[in-house]
Amino acid sequence: MKVKGTPMRPIQPSADGQAVSIIDQTKLPHEFVLARLETLADAANAIRAMLVRGAPLIGATAAYGVWLAMRADASDEALENAIDTLAATRPTAINLRWALEDMRGTLAPLPPADRPAAAFARAGAIADEDVAINHAIGRHGLEIIRRLVAGKRPGEPVNILTHCNAGWLATVDWGTATSPIYQAHDAGIPVHVWVDETRPRNQGAGLTAWELANHGVPHKVIVDNAGGHLMQHGLVDMVIVGTDRTTATGDVCNKIGTYLKALAARDNGVPFYVALPSPTIDWSLSDGRAIPIEERDAAEVTHVWGRTVDGEVLPVRVTPEESSVANYGFDVTPARLVTGLITERGIAEASREGLLALFPEYRARAAGE
Amino acid sequence: MKVKGTPMRPIQPSADGQAVSIIDQTKLPHEFVLARLETLADAANAIRAMLVRGAPLIGATAAYGVWLAMRADASDEALENAIDTLAATRPTAINLRWALEDMRGTLAPLPPADRPAAAFARAGAIADEDVAINHAIGRHGLEIIRRLVAGKRPGEPVNILTHCNAGWLATVDWGTATSPIYQAHDAGIPVHVWVDETRPRNQGAGLTAWELANHGVPHKVIVDNAGGHLMQHGLVDMVIVGTDRTTATGDVCNKIGTYLKALAARDNGVPFYVALPSPTIDWSLSDGRAIPIEERDAAEVTHVWGRTVDGEVLPVRVTPEESSVANYGFDVTPARLVTGLITERGIAEASREGLLALFPEYRARAAGE
Repeated sequence: MKVKGTPMRPIQPSADGQAVSIIDQTKLPHEFVLARLETLADAANAIRAMLVRGAPLIGATAAYGVWLAMRADASDEALENAIDTLAATRPTAINLRWALEDMRGTLAPLPPADRPAAAFARAGAIADEDVAINHAIGRHGLEIIRRLVAGKRPGEPVNILTHCNAGWLATVDWGTATSPIYQAHDAGIPVHVWVDETRPRNQGAGLTAWELANHGVPHKVIVDNAGGHLMQHGLVDMVIVGTDRTTATGDVCNKIGTYLKALAARDNGVPFYVALPSPTIDWSLSDGRAIPIEERDAAEVTHVWGRTVDGEVLPVRVTPEESSVANYGFDVTPARLVTGLITERGIAEASREGLLALFPEYRARAAGE
Repeated sequence: MKVKGTPMRPIQPSADGQAVSIIDQTKLPHEFVLARLETLADAANAIRAMLVRGAPLIGATAAYGVWLAMRADASDEALENAIDTLAATRPTAINLRWALEDMRGTLAPLPPADRPAAAFARAGAIADEDVAINHAIGRHGLEIIRRLVAGKRPGEPVNILTHCNAGWLATVDWGTATSPIYQAHDAGIPVHVWVDETRPRNQGAGLTAWELANHGVPHKVIVDNAGGHLMQHGLVDMVIVGTDRTTATGDVCNKIGTYLKALAARDNGVPFYVALPSPTIDWSLSDGRAIPIEERDAAEVTHVWGRTVDGEVLPVRVTPEESSVANYGFDVTPARLVTGLITERGIAEASREGLLALFPEYRARAAGE
């Protein structure tokens, strides 16, 4: 999407063909800084230190990281070392391992001399596949927005609430939850986005708001507490969120707090949609309650990062020293609260049959209740 | 309640009898500072600049402010000036006007020479009445906690979630929502409190956590997004919140985000209680949707206050400069989601008949649907 009018991806080969250029997301929203990855170590560090984040973007960065490794040394040992090094950066990221296995499968059979070029081509293809999936999600989601705008007065915007960042910064382009929003905006449909701050890490306030501002989409940041009130007063026409993992039955694991918005949407008759690339469906799971929920670093709760009036970006403590905290990273929204799952193949009812209607090839894997 | 082992109120006459001592709540939770109010101007500033906050505490501070004014000049003109000055500090605070009318009614009929002593006595009585109401709320709420602990294994705590600060810092002592918690803790019943951070002003992270830490009540601070997940996993036995205003039908206007917790409580079978002194019941209202919701300063959303590693307390920006924000201060939880209203006379069903059973003298005022 656009940054100050210029189309851009959060990862792309550099113009000189010698490196990869990424947006350093640790600096957002306060500074826009491009970082240049020239080596395997650079790529591993970018993932580990969260200069890039978001499952699809991590996968693409790992794929390009293998290319950077192959440019320096294309031996079997170097390939295995690159895969091990990159896999260790974010041990729980499924896309990361998937992208690395893909690269191994592509490169291992080739003679070393052919590996650099093949790695570059395959990393580009992985990135482009993500873009294609997200674009298709947006196309299907756009139809929902078109139906909503039909019920509005001319020029009146469709109000969409989103939580966390399932935006283009988390993917290679378009984002998942944001893809219908960008496509509607680019098609001239008036949209207005309520952006949940998304404590503790403030991905909404810091990343989604930054994305929308740079692409020119009207939006307002709200605290996570506000969405229920907005829905009670008819100020939200739909909710769209992303997901880290969706069960075969349509239960949705996403950023902590998503479930509260789904409850409010249900209580107020607001449609609640989840945008998801089909690789994030876990066909082996039939109950979202079985998904283990990561407890994260206490410092995310005790401190908030931001920019001082002097321009310094630093953390400030918001809790008493004596108080302990709990920090659950995700929650699970049960399928019964989900209006629909927007996938690259269309919109599925949040149920086993709904998903299998679009993805019949998984019927055997999704067997059983 | 206690601060580092010493019983304390957030407002009390100073030991020398010449002033009023308050806790400067703008410094919490990072510094514990007592401020000395010696003049009407001091009292007005303490309310305006939110050194004191919380409806009952504002009322008591205003009453003492009238006393400070009468010490300097007990004329009719000075009395009216004091009331006007104090009333203008927080125009929407109902308790403030109520306390000032009470002081006027007490003092105006008296000869000026008698007014200082009478003002001091009446301010003390207003403060003590608040303490008595809150203590009674706690006594009734304690019975709920006793019933919950009966279902626990020995030593296992009752887990209570609260939102914002309806604690002793918002009152003259005990607090409202916290009063049952302090009474349970003091009675040796194991309680553990989940403290919602309560963005945008972080009264939970900054004030409720500080209170509980100082009184020695086990607790954990959580982001506002976390409560639903905790309830889904059986980690919350009850919710208790305060309220700014309750309708005659039991709709509850409280800090933004309260409604989301009430929805999660209902979805998970967790009892949701509201603690309220009966003066906050608005007998003229039968529909919470009619309560106007204040929109507050954008800076509360764009910035977070906290302490740097160097010990400086300052605001940091968390949103992009280009993004606008919305900041609704309160929401309304419909009576259907409220398990009970804990008043100083006992626990009422959240309905007109439930409230009138405890407060029959308001039947005429609460007439009509």
